Amino acid sequence: MTDTLPSYLRDAWWSPADREAHGPADAVAVRDASTGEIVTHVSTAGIDLAGALEYARTVGQASLGELTFHQRALLLKEFAVALTARKEELYELSKRAGATVRDSLNDVDGGIGVLFTYASKGRRELPNARVYLDGPVESLAKDGSFLGRHVYSRLPGVAVQINAFNFPMWGALEKFAPAFLAGVPSLVKPATPTAYIAEAWVRILAETGRLPAGSLQLVSGSVPGLFDHLGLGDLVGFTGSASTAARLREQAGPGVRFTSETDSINASVLGPDAVPGTVEFDAYVKQLLIELTTKAGQKCTAIRRAIVPSGLVPAVIDALRDRIAERVVVGDPHAENVTMGPLVSREQRDEVLRAIEALQTAGGRIVLGGTEAPDVVRADGSTGPAPEGAFLTPVVLAFDGDPSALPDAVHDVEAFGPVASVLSYRSVDEAADLVGRGGGSLVTSVATADPAVAATLLARTAAYNGRLLFLDRDDARTSTGHGAPVPHLVHGGPGRAGGGEELGGIRAVLHHMQRTAVQGSPAMLTALTGVWHQGAASRSDRHPFRKSLAELRIGDQFASPLRAVTLDDIETFAHFTGDLFYAHMDEAAAAANPFFPGRVAHGYLLVSWAAGLFVDPAPGPVLANYGLENLRFVTPVSPGDEVRVVLTAKQITPRETDEYGEVRWDAVLLNQRDELVATYDVLTLVAKTWDEGDAGRPASASPEPAGVGA
Amino acid sequence: MTDTLPSYLRDAWWSPADREAHGPADAVAVRDASTGEIVTHVSTAGIDLAGALEYARTVGQASLGELTFHQRALLLKEFAVALTARKEELYELSKRAGATVRDSLNDVDGGIGVLFTYASKGRRELPNARVYLDGPVESLAKDGSFLGRHVYSRLPGVAVQINAFNFPMWGALEKFAPAFLAGVPSLVKPATPTAYIAEAWVRILAETGRLPAGSLQLVSGSVPGLFDHLGLGDLVGFTGSASTAARLREQAGPGVRFTSETDSINASVLGPDAVPGTVEFDAYVKQLLIELTTKAGQKCTAIRRAIVPSGLVPAVIDALRDRIAERVVVGDPHAENVTMGPLVSREQRDEVLRAIEALQTAGGRIVLGGTEAPDVVRADGSTGPAPEGAFLTPVVLAFDGDPSALPDAVHDVEAFGPVASVLSYRSVDEAADLVGRGGGSLVTSVATADPAVAATLLARTAAYNGRLLFLDRDDARTSTGHGAPVPHLVHGGPGRAGGGEELGGIRAVLHHMQRTAVQGSPAMLTALTGVWHQGAASRSDRHPFRKSLAELRIGDQFASPLRAVTLDDIETFAHFTGDLFYAHMDEAAAAANPFFPGRVAHGYLLVSWAAGLFVDPAPGPVLANYGLENLRFVTPVSPGDEVRVVLTAKQITPRETDEYGEVRWDAVLLNQRDELVATYDVLTLVAKTWDEGDAGRPASASPEPAGVGA
Repeated sequence: MTDTLPSYLRDAWWSPADREAHGPADAVAVRDASTGEIVTHVSTAGIDLAGALEYARTVGQASLGELTFHQRALLLKEFAVALTARKEELYELSKRAGATVRDSLNDVDGGIGVLFTYASKGRRELPNARVYLDGPVESLAKDGSFLGRHVYSRLPGVAVQINAFNFPMWGALEKFAPAFLAGVPSLVKPATPTAYIAEAWVRILAETGRLPAGSLQLVSGSVPGLFDHLGLGDLVGFTGSASTAARLREQAGPGVRFTSETDSINASVLGPDAVPGTVEFDAYVKQLLIELTTKAGQKCTAIRRAIVPSGLVPAVIDALRDRIAERVVVGDPHAENVTMGPLVSREQRDEVLRAIEALQTAGGRIVLGGTEAPDVVRADGSTGPAPEGAFLTPVVLAFDGDPSALPDAVHDVEAFGPVASVLSYRSVDEAADLVGRGGGSLVTSVATADPAVAATLLARTAAYNGRLLFLDRDDARTSTGHGAPVPHLVHGGPGRAGGGEELGGIRAVLHHMQRTAVQGSPAMLTALTGVWHQGAASRSDRHPFRKSLAELRIGDQFASPLRAVTLDDIETFAHFTGDLFYAHMDEAAAAANPFFPGRVAHGYLLVSWAAGLFVDPAPGPVLANYGLENLRFVTPVSPGDEVRVVLTAKQITPRETDEYGEVRWDAVLLNQRDELVATYDVLTLVAKTWDEGDAGRPASASPEPAGVGA
Repeated sequence: MTDTLPSYLRDAWWSPADREAHGPADAVAVRDASTGEIVTHVSTAGIDLAGALEYARTVGQASLGELTFHQRALLLKEFAVALTARKEELYELSKRAGATVRDSLNDVDGGIGVLFTYASKGRRELPNARVYLDGPVESLAKDGSFLGRHVYSRLPGVAVQINAFNFPMWGALEKFAPAFLAGVPSLVKPATPTAYIAEAWVRILAETGRLPAGSLQLVSGSVPGLFDHLGLGDLVGFTGSASTAARLREQAGPGVRFTSETDSINASVLGPDAVPGTVEFDAYVKQLLIELTTKAGQKCTAIRRAIVPSGLVPAVIDALRDRIAERVVVGDPHAENVTMGPLVSREQRDEVLRAIEALQTAGGRIVLGGTEAPDVVRADGSTGPAPEGAFLTPVVLAFDGDPSALPDAVHDVEAFGPVASVLSYRSVDEAADLVGRGGGSLVTSVATADPAVAATLLARTAAYNGRLLFLDRDDARTSTGHGAPVPHLVHGGPGRAGGGEELGGIRAVLHHMQRTAVQGSPAMLTALTGVWHQGAASRSDRHPFRKSLAELRIGDQFASPLRAVTLDDIETFAHFTGDLFYAHMDEAAAAANPFFPGRVAHGYLLVSWAAGLFVDPAPGPVLANYGLENLRFVTPVSPGDEVRVVLTAKQITPRETDEYGEVRWDAVLLNQRDELVATYDVLTLVAKTWDEGDAGRPASASPEPAGVGA
């Protein structure tokens, strides 16, 4: 490792000009968490942060703007693959920060998992376009000539991502991935104690040669004045302390979108039904141990308050003591049998010791572990003191007295290490009150098999939590865990937890975009969104099912002739399908139904006939009908009525990695009086190219997300 | 009107104890905008604001919590009906604040319209429940035993709504309606100059006797210290100046959700194609006049910057001059022919005069109107000076020189009256830059028939605007207008506009709720959400189609036997429907298709058969199948395969005002190897009660939002 860790700016590696033996005068040493040896230095002496921001806003915005959501998603997949190939390097490096390989499953593999998830969701849940439509069309004029629609477009600035030391990969990538997918360039500022791990993953991404210019920059070291250079269109994603968040938020000013993830005194509630001997009790204790020891408890999501029925406090402590004795080996992660590493630094350990003291002052008794420096397993396998390492044992405190009268410190001091308090409760309502006293948390978990207990806790605590996890016998084995945010679900919480939202699939992408209500005529909205709107011009030159994606345009339309429906047809369909519902079969009973004038045609007959009316039978570019959406039957069809269908290409989504794409068709069924019979969207797969002389030519396969019927 | 305007607190009218002739010593006089006569006083001497907040958090939360979304929506409808019946009173009162009846269409009718829209959207787009599910289920374990879902639940506090003087009804109701629908009690603080109009609508609502206890409180007068009493779970919706917003936001603290709608220097762009003689040019000028004169230009959404091709500036000014001469009659709204009233107060007029001066200092030349007090039409119809009234004529300023080099004041001084600047541009990109220099706006409108111009402006300015309106020949007559937020679309904008979002249909309701990721087993998620999740327990005691809503429970299931599919069936269906697609009819061609093993059954055959397999034919509580959603064909079905269907009651939505409700059924089609053939949701209407002896008994009708087929 170099003496001074470089930054990655304007698509090149940058180091302070003044490179003394240990970096420039302002350089900060970064030490091995177990041994205290110097790993590297960081310094930003002479850095041009305003220039880096401007590079992102110009070059970064331009290069990302050339790509669609799907193209960006595929790049995220490439990055995930590149990181996967070099995981071992990252594990090794992480050991120096105190992370065991199990810890790295959260940080390294977790970070890679975020990239894979966004790569997948980006292609499945976003269009292959640059803007995202939110919600349905709103009709704002009776004659349909004036419409409204919500459009998300990316913010025009840069996403500044300030990360905490505990997850140098996951914590950075969970901010980077949605920004990248949105098309917003990132400037990543890791925390100093683990900056060399951030440098490593950025280097791996840079070495792929696939990072769009200006899409990712890294600042190794402090960022003086950075926030003075931010303005409307920029974002900040901050993970760290509430006080720093408040200061930076003010410095950035009101036009900057500021998301923070700060102190969170998370709770885990043991249900009154989850007594010793139940699966829920065991799952609860197991989870408590995991949250105490993973990353040596240095997780924003770790359990700080175990909220336990008053009679079960001794049982929980005993079970936890047994598990700790069985499973916890504290030491240097380079030694093989170590299950819990040191804290990231001795400064951090001292912070935690001060927090334990505050909890003791608030009435806490240490019932497991202690504050003295433990003997540990050293890298060479020997056991003994490690005075230069930042080691602690797991510490559990218990509190006596009226649970609802405990001092605030119990609910607002965050001991950011292997520390948890056990609080007792006397009723489920009291447990809910205790959860709420955290003042807003990232996550609360509940171990219960009793839906009534769960329902009370949901109703009383959901507004105080970003995530609620319910553990029971059905999911105890498969639960992803109290402390593990998953990219599919939002991460963040109200109040003390920062009030922000990260992850949550596409939700996090949209947090990097502006939602704008767009009003206009159908033709204008069609032109602006790339999605055909009812009322816009259409084209009926030839059957659109004979057009490949190369030729097909939104607005291409097929309008069928009318087809008469007879009682005989209804009878035939009823007996063929077995659908003998009285509305189709019994005139008197049908007429007595509030919705029907008498016997009516089956809805399924009508959509089947519609397909018969619009399908072009010979092999052609339309490969399959893989689904249908938003079908509504509006006007019943009686014997003697006639129906016709109008089918219009509404949205075209070419696949990046296949020889076909999705086409969504607007289908409207009308009767002989032009009354609306039914509306729906038909979903098809259509080949990118088609040679009419080449009927039956196979396109490359591998449908995704699922196969197709017909 | 009383000497001191009462407040409405704890479900009763409250006035300061010290009622002198003109109210207590701290009372502020409110004057008629045209005559300067005293209308009333406001004072909050001795008010218990902390008590009012606590009443909302306890009594208000409890009473609203007893109601479902649909029940709250129906109350909003009742309120809208009550206000409609007493519109004339509100019009009369509004005249004293300077509002013409046309102005009241925006404020009074606009406010009522918001209530009606939320009443309707609340029942159509929200479940008849208390929590709202956001997005689909996320499967978090391979075996389906661990799921994630996003749940919105209401915030546990109070919504403090600080309104501006210009829309005492609309501005208040657009905040109140979504809060009420979410189940969060409101504390409304109107601006002093129009507090008596707010008092009037609150009185009408209170007199319905239908306000849930504590759901609405009104403070007539100042709110000293109010923000010190707010905390996690409370919200503030603020409309007013950016500086006040910043101060209050800090006072409220980080746990309070704060939405603001502040200064916005909105733009309206005339496209280069929209030359004189085009519909777009006329629509542009007409809109400019409306925005100048409606509410005497006292609208956050009014056009402050008309951005016009440099060659067309004189034409726009001339056309506007002609229109003003033709149509604008300034005076007391009590006089019949008056089309533009005074500003709300002389203080406000003086503010505007100062802003005009600032724009002149920035290089503006007044080209229409002037700053001297005009002769006006008085209430008695006579014309002459009105020195006690807050009158102004429309004022238009033009700017010479390089458009891109104009001083910042042009883009950030808000003259909150009948004032607009005309700026010129030389290219569409320059027009976009000028829009952006507003630093974030509520709305920008564009008059163009050229999709390329529109597309450039959308791409370049959407991120700077909460709303974009495109005017062209198709929507010129039906446009709801630049300055009119509609409840269906979001209102608010980034940056200088405050960074908040109001309205936008259900989006605004969700801003009053906390989104929480809930993780658990299928059974637990089913119990917690009231929606059946795949993998949870089911019940198959008797055919669920024979159960009314009184008996039906989510999880009630029907599993059909297998039915074999033959080539003959496929042929029969093909010829009956006319769907002769080669994948069904031609073995070689089908096999050459990448998705099919050979000839396969039609997807529509399968869903039709599924209905035949699950339908119970005799009259019963299931009245109709009104639609189908999210149909996906997964595995093709070949001749010789067999299919079966499993149908499970997934979500039950009883209607409040009908004798039936909606039931959503989870439908799964499987083949003889239990492979997934297709999945979809079947939507039905089911009677609330059903007597098996009473077959054919009609339920009360009036389906909504649309009729039904079968």
